[in-house]
Amino acid sequence: MRKTPAEKAPLREVAVVRVIYGDTDQMGMVYYANYLRYFEVARNEYMRAAGANYRAFEEAHGLYLPVVEAHVAYRRPARYDDELRILAGLSPVGAASARFDYEIRRRVDDEPLVTGYTLHACITADGRVVRIPPEMRAALTAPRS
Amino acid sequence: MRKTPAEKAPLREVAVVRVIYGDTDQMGMVYYANYLRYFEVARNEYMRAAGANYRAFEEAHGLYLPVVEAHVAYRRPARYDDELRILAGLSPVGAASARFDYEIRRRVDDEPLVTGYTLHACITADGRVVRIPPEMRAALTAPRS
Amino acid sequence: MRKTPAEKAPLREVAVVRVIYGDTDQMGMVYYANYLRYFEVARNEYMRAAGANYRAFEEAHGLYLPVVEAHVAYRRPARYDDELRILAGLSPVGAASARFDYEIRRRVDDEPLVTGYTLHACITADGRVVRIPPEMRAALTAPRS
Amino acid sequence: MRKTPAEKAPLREVAVVRVIYGDTDQMGMVYYANYLRYFEVARNEYMRAAGANYRAFEEAHGLYLPVVEAHVAYRRPARYDDELRILAGLSPVGAASARFDYEIRRRVDDEPLVTGYTLHACITADGRVVRIPPEMRAALTAPRS
Repeated sequence: MRKTPAEKAPLREVAVVRVIYGDTDQMGMVYYANYLRYFEVARNEYMRAAGANYRAFEEAHGLYLPVVEAHVAYRRPARYDDELRILAGLSPVGAASARFDYEIRRRVDDEPLVTGYTLHACITADGRVVRIPPEMRAALTAPRS
Repeated sequence: MRKTPAEKAPLREVAVVRVIYGDTDQMGMVYYANYLRYFEVARNEYMRAAGANYRAFEEAHGLYLPVVEAHVAYRRPARYDDELRILAGLSPVGAASARFDYEIRRRVDDEPLVTGYTLHACITADGRVVRIPPEMRAALTAPRS
Repeated sequence: MRKTPAEKAPLREVAVVRVIYGDTDQMGMVYYANYLRYFEVARNEYMRAAGANYRAFEEAHGLYLPVVEAHVAYRRPARYDDELRILAGLSPVGAASARFDYEIRRRVDDEPLVTGYTLHACITADGRVVRIPPEMRAALTAPRS
Repeated sequence: MRKTPAEKAPLREVAVVRVIYGDTDQMGMVYYANYLRYFEVARNEYMRAAGANYRAFEEAHGLYLPVVEAHVAYRRPARYDDELRILAGLSPVGAASARFDYEIRRRVDDEPLVTGYTLHACITADGRVVRIPPEMRAALTAPRS
């Protein structure tokens, strides 16, 4: 059963990407799998904002946050040369997982194109699911703005 | 609101793929977006089995089935050189959409690795959502075995 | 026989990209095909600098510059989270083709990682190879700085 | 300076792949970087034919064959749903490197679409370039047919 957070975190812009030929397919739109690449860009940049703290936690606690579920809703297509605003937010879900929500908007007119989320479990290097330490949770859900 | 079919179609094997370096990432596993490529392989091969009929319908009716939603659940990672069995099934969802369900299994031990679905709307060339013609529906949901 | 320009154009930085998981493979390095994606980013940004002129020419003359040859030399690997400087330059090669040269450097220490080139033919919409118009050539090989 | 083998190895078919949407771009052709994915499929299958011997050597000698150079010549485009025959051959180049040659043909009419090569250095786990052991060379350049 999918667990949904009590309330969705507010999203904020974390990256802007420009669509290249290599992202499109012969329908002239971004290939549906490639939005998950944009979501990864968003997580990376979100994490970078939470920065030193997260890496320190990863090393200190030996904990990882792999994707266990991904979801994408395609409303309108992104096209070659479009500049895309990527927004993201992170919410706790239970004690041992967290959820990233995403929204992709066309920069020129701020039209929403795609939304989605990824669910992440907190695991140790040997794969055991564990609670997210409170300090890690605090750092990730309230990155510096 | 996501619409779910009354009952999920039985899945059958439609393709076998072997994981290449280009599919993996530095965690040594298939990159999470690339399972959507495997899902596309599955749709193509499923369609090919339903074959001449589908293309005839597309041309005769001028109808398309774009992906409007995609979902992936990652249970266990696929790794370099793994042979993967890809299973798929198609179910109607309401009058104007259909849903592909997928399962990816490691061939050597039949271990289930990933499941997912894609939801497709039936649209005309100019983007209007329309009912799936009954003959098209019949051809797609019961391809020759 | 490969045609080489009389002299290689000076390269200048046209983009900076950050390596994501989706770019790497299980060796922990950027997958060898993905440098061609970075080269495309470089061409796009180079073209954008030459800007309005190029698009105007494409529309006015109905001419295209498809890749007919690509070459990559891998010296040192780019890795996850590396920031990469991408440099590019364009040179005429004969009357009907042009060559982009590229260099990718790791930003933190300016270490050169990868070099390469793509050769482009000038063709009409129906595929005939034609001379590059002198004004187009002038605009592309000397973009505004 | 690029080293070329004294004579190019005869090529033989090692794989057949079908083009998916995810391989194409908005020009309706396979994106230029993706032919390097097909080349990797070819190397994998070529290696598999040389099989147990190669892996045994890799483990016994601790040697690797990374790509140090790649080249692609694009003659005619591959398109969505094309079945592609991929041919490959391996030749020694000097004492410490080897070169894969490739050819991609459209299956329906055997039209040649793309040719290319990758140059590989023989290195140890810590990156030193070494001679390819004679038994390894013999196994790779004359795989069982």
